Amino acid sequence: MSTPSNLAALGERGAIDLIRRRLPAAPPWIVVGIGDDAAVAEPARNTLDVFTTDALVEGVHFDRRFTPPSAIGHRAMAANLSDLAAMGATPRLALLSLALPETLPVSDLESLVDGLVALATHHGVHLVGGNITRSPGPLVVDITAVGSVRRRHALTRPGARPGDDVWVSGTIGAAAAGLAMLAAGDAGVAAEDADVCAGAYLAPVPRVRLGGLLGRNRAASSCMDLSDGLADGLSQLAAASDVAFEIDPDAIPVSPPAAVWFRHAGADPLPSAMAGGDDYELLFTVSRRRRSRFEAVRKLTRDVPLAKIGRVVAGSGAWLVRGEARTPVAGGYEHFR
Amino acid sequence: MSTPSNLAALGERGAIDLIRRRLPAAPPWIVVGIGDDAAVAEPARNTLDVFTTDALVEGVHFDRRFTPPSAIGHRAMAANLSDLAAMGATPRLALLSLALPETLPVSDLESLVDGLVALATHHGVHLVGGNITRSPGPLVVDITAVGSVRRRHALTRPGARPGDDVWVSGTIGAAAAGLAMLAAGDAGVAAEDADVCAGAYLAPVPRVRLGGLLGRNRAASSCMDLSDGLADGLSQLAAASDVAFEIDPDAIPVSPPAAVWFRHAGADPLPSAMAGGDDYELLFTVSRRRRSRFEAVRKLTRDVPLAKIGRVVAGSGAWLVRGEARTPVAGGYEHFR
Repeated sequence: MSTPSNLAALGERGAIDLIRRRLPAAPPWIVVGIGDDAAVAEPARNTLDVFTTDALVEGVHFDRRFTPPSAIGHRAMAANLSDLAAMGATPRLALLSLALPETLPVSDLESLVDGLVALATHHGVHLVGGNITRSPGPLVVDITAVGSVRRRHALTRPGARPGDDVWVSGTIGAAAAGLAMLAAGDAGVAAEDADVCAGAYLAPVPRVRLGGLLGRNRAASSCMDLSDGLADGLSQLAAASDVAFEIDPDAIPVSPPAAVWFRHAGADPLPSAMAGGDDYELLFTVSRRRRSRFEAVRKLTRDVPLAKIGRVVAGSGAWLVRGEARTPVAGGYEHFR
Repeated sequence: MSTPSNLAALGERGAIDLIRRRLPAAPPWIVVGIGDDAAVAEPARNTLDVFTTDALVEGVHFDRRFTPPSAIGHRAMAANLSDLAAMGATPRLALLSLALPETLPVSDLESLVDGLVALATHHGVHLVGGNITRSPGPLVVDITAVGSVRRRHALTRPGARPGDDVWVSGTIGAAAAGLAMLAAGDAGVAAEDADVCAGAYLAPVPRVRLGGLLGRNRAASSCMDLSDGLADGLSQLAAASDVAFEIDPDAIPVSPPAAVWFRHAGADPLPSAMAGGDDYELLFTVSRRRRSRFEAVRKLTRDVPLAKIGRVVAGSGAWLVRGEARTPVAGGYEHFR
């Protein structure tokens, strides 16, 4: 029998078997895994369940011409793990729903699954089930991720109070620069800068450990992830807490390689980085009386840069403040605009 | 401000608000609902978690020309609740991931959500979160449903033993006849028959109560749902238990209106009904020593017809047996064939 070269030849069950063969052994708390009508798992003890779902759609969130299948899988899982991290949750399991063009090469499906499973396994997440269907249009990778968190450790968006500091993890803008660079097919900057930006887009690192530590140490008064960009995040987090954010534009940690690329492309680095999505960093606030707890978290996460970018004040909206000038932060990316 | 007529005008947040406004009040065990990075819920006590995901893709699972938006929403939720029912689980919550064409009328989104929420609410299921994105191609409705089941009450596919009886709920074939009839745009049969078939396709009833009762009473040795048709189900359930099924073709409860329609269309009713999908009935086996428990379940579910269609024997495969003749049950529907 020849090896099936595309999904029409492989069949639905062949595709399910292909995925199952690429998974590590199931942990003992999975009672029923892939292959039944539904998956059954023991809950984590003394915790709440945390649920998120996020989909990547070809032509909206990625372009197969310059996004390798393994990166599509990685990014789909990263988006979901980042959502759990923003709640302070420990990720446990995921379900994968795929809508696949019949012409998709089987090797692409293998790479997609490998990219997704590698990131999941790194974070102790097991794929317990899913669904595969044909797509008459785009490739769609839809993941639901489930985690656990103790009630007092859950991070939510409301909770920022005047006097709190505003913090962001990592740097911003590299993923947006990487996407623009890959789409243009021409880096135009030094190879090391190009690699950083492309890597940030293709293989984002969800801040799972940082989110868990902020939650367990009750160090943040509010938290969200930056999937739709810093500008969008600042506006949303301020609105959720019914407060205003005053942000120091000079404190925003724009990725240096991204700044190089934005300038090369004739764009102003700061607004470009703030508008760009896909950073998957955590944006959070820290109250004065939690500062020592937060410093303890910082010591445990020395590999993740953390930048204080502003403060919470009474009012509404997110503002860039430079001296006397106070300008509103522009809005983020909306899928239907 | 004028009312937005399509999704491009409504925007992503407008669409999320539209959905949120159409939900009933959240039950107290939902700690964080729609609007944060992820949803947080208290687990059910002393139970295992049950997870399933199922997607409906335009052009594969439905055709918007003859499937009203409310039916698309209903069917997407029904497919997931049916999977939970097949595990004996009590459904609790769901996440909704939508990929929507920008040209979709807002009124269609409203109807889709209403259809989905009505069925969910009827079964005590709360929508706790989701994701909305633009689709450059088909409308995709992807649902993840979560339920709970006590460990000893979970129904799984393996477990049928020689000597068990094979049972199926409801009737089969009406949904397939309804789909064919709607696609042809011409019932060609009496209105009451046409209505039954169209209704079976557009508004299938997931067997949530039956599945839960079979599980709680430990009345079934194996169970699955029939989303891909009886022929497929028999083959899969026999294979999962490593046994053979001998089925009496005269005992198969073909829907009488479907039989009328299949004959009208020049097709043999029995194989047509067995090959057709979307029935969402439960197929299960009952051991001799559990018969009294099963009879107790039957008394509690008098509104759901149950038919004994065959028995489990040693061997492999699913077979139609009439006198001395033993013919294999033909396979079911695979999405990539």
